[in-house]
Amino acid sequence: MLEHGGRLRLAAQRYGIPLADWVDLSTGINPQAWPVPPLAPEVWQRLPETDDGLEAAAAAYYGSTQLLPVAGSQAAIQALPACFAPGRVITLAPTYAEHPHAWRGHALTALPGAEIDAAVGNADTLLLVQPNNPDGQRFSREQLLAWHADLAARGGRLIVDEAFLDAEPMASLVPLAGQPGLVVLRSVGKFFGLAGARVGFVFAEAALLEKLADRLGPWAVSGPARAVTAAALADTAWQAAARAQLAANSQRLAALLDQHGLGGGAGTALFQWRPRPDAARIHSQLAQQGILTRLFETPPGLRFGLPGNETEWARLAAALTRLRIL
Amino acid sequence: MLEHGGRLRLAAQRYGIPLADWVDLSTGINPQAWPVPPLAPEVWQRLPETDDGLEAAAAAYYGSTQLLPVAGSQAAIQALPACFAPGRVITLAPTYAEHPHAWRGHALTALPGAEIDAAVGNADTLLLVQPNNPDGQRFSREQLLAWHADLAARGGRLIVDEAFLDAEPMASLVPLAGQPGLVVLRSVGKFFGLAGARVGFVFAEAALLEKLADRLGPWAVSGPARAVTAAALADTAWQAAARAQLAANSQRLAALLDQHGLGGGAGTALFQWRPRPDAARIHSQLAQQGILTRLFETPPGLRFGLPGNETEWARLAAALTRLRIL
Repeated sequence: MLEHGGRLRLAAQRYGIPLADWVDLSTGINPQAWPVPPLAPEVWQRLPETDDGLEAAAAAYYGSTQLLPVAGSQAAIQALPACFAPGRVITLAPTYAEHPHAWRGHALTALPGAEIDAAVGNADTLLLVQPNNPDGQRFSREQLLAWHADLAARGGRLIVDEAFLDAEPMASLVPLAGQPGLVVLRSVGKFFGLAGARVGFVFAEAALLEKLADRLGPWAVSGPARAVTAAALADTAWQAAARAQLAANSQRLAALLDQHGLGGGAGTALFQWRPRPDAARIHSQLAQQGILTRLFETPPGLRFGLPGNETEWARLAAALTRLRIL
Repeated sequence: MLEHGGRLRLAAQRYGIPLADWVDLSTGINPQAWPVPPLAPEVWQRLPETDDGLEAAAAAYYGSTQLLPVAGSQAAIQALPACFAPGRVITLAPTYAEHPHAWRGHALTALPGAEIDAAVGNADTLLLVQPNNPDGQRFSREQLLAWHADLAARGGRLIVDEAFLDAEPMASLVPLAGQPGLVVLRSVGKFFGLAGARVGFVFAEAALLEKLADRLGPWAVSGPARAVTAAALADTAWQAAARAQLAANSQRLAALLDQHGLGGGAGTALFQWRPRPDAARIHSQLAQQGILTRLFETPPGLRFGLPGNETEWARLAAALTRLRIL
């Protein structure tokens, strides 16, 4: 299993700064989460059933009924590779590490975005995160559909992880779900800030959804998480406000980084990415000031999540002011 | 996937009785669940980490640190068969149907309890539910340890699902976890009445726990469920009271059934089992009166869960009085 979490605890030890004193920008999770209301006791007590409104709320929010709720998109990431015969798989490099890790039983090639088009013709599976984590890379809808057509015509598939797409007015491929060879993953962890709930959705053709459901078994998503997610997906007023706020905050973050010598990257509504050869040194300088960013080594870069309040914005601005960029 | 749930809805349709008017005795879940307190918002927002006290609370409650939390023991039931090379597997007949269903890629034999001892010598895996669901069948600790020794000596394994064991003063095998070839499953769904939380535990040797963790992936149990389970496992006062109450209620249920011509079965603290050739007819007579029991066909029998309050006890008693047993 890949190492996750505990980064804040490790940083607290390493830099001698108490846990409570950190500004944690190491995730891409909305720091202003959908507010969870008190829940009916029954959601804890009864086995979760599929008549509780979750599937309907998800179909309305995402725009397709070809869906399976899963315990976080991670559950689908784990289960998908075994649903297909071993084959040639292309992922983007860099991308969310759990994807290539899950497909290690297949013949895996990790390529920069510019090299994908030439390689798709020899692949069975193309797996993309759109927009990509950590670098915010995007492909046009036309490009994705062309790759899908090529793969599907040969019995292959395009898998698109849209975990970071909710917060932007980008075109999702979910409404096309049901077409052979198209799989789309969604998550309520990032945009809704409900990473602890462990709820995601797979959109795909019915036969694949059945195969996945059989692998994952009954009651894969907890009752409380189903109830909370159904309510969050139906809260269109909160969604509209959150989209506007995240877009503004992401622009504010980009401007702040640019202003302090950390320009030249890309991002999504939920994070900014700054590829830099000196990423490790800057990560360390920020950590010495209690600002935790996410350091990537190949290629070297820093991912900055959004500060959650004005105190955190001020802490970040002050720390950036003290950076020594060589 | 096996069909679960929806039984109450189907019964409501079939018998023309509104959902709210049923006494649902079709599960083996404690009707007086551990009371879930309000939760900190962070458990919904942050990715669950393993420093939140769940593992420690589970080790103290169950008596072993050789554990992996899973999203309900069902998650382990799904994942275990692929952790071993295909082999000869024995289950009890009858038993919880998800077990044999999960092992269908192996050479599976379902045997009555009396035939197991003679067959263990030719098996790689012996899989038992202790006490057994639905019939309450039990094996002595000495018997289980002898079978385990036999299997483990040949590189095989004994898997014991103790989902219904918490409520009784039976000897769990959990304290022996870590021994090669021993796997014990536990669940907080039944005794704690937290079936919606989807939390269970696997107790086994470290290498198997690692393999399972790798298959199930990170963040398998939701943050809110981890918090609730940690608190329930630490609430020894509630546990003691619940054990006494469940034992009393199970005896009361057995006596009530005996008194109305439904004697001669067995049970656990959470349900009573009545094997009867006329099970389907009695199930139907009770359903016509809004009492839902769980009907099993092979062998024919009825499983009665515990009524949750005096109104439900009175409804059950009245319905039993009106039974026409031929």
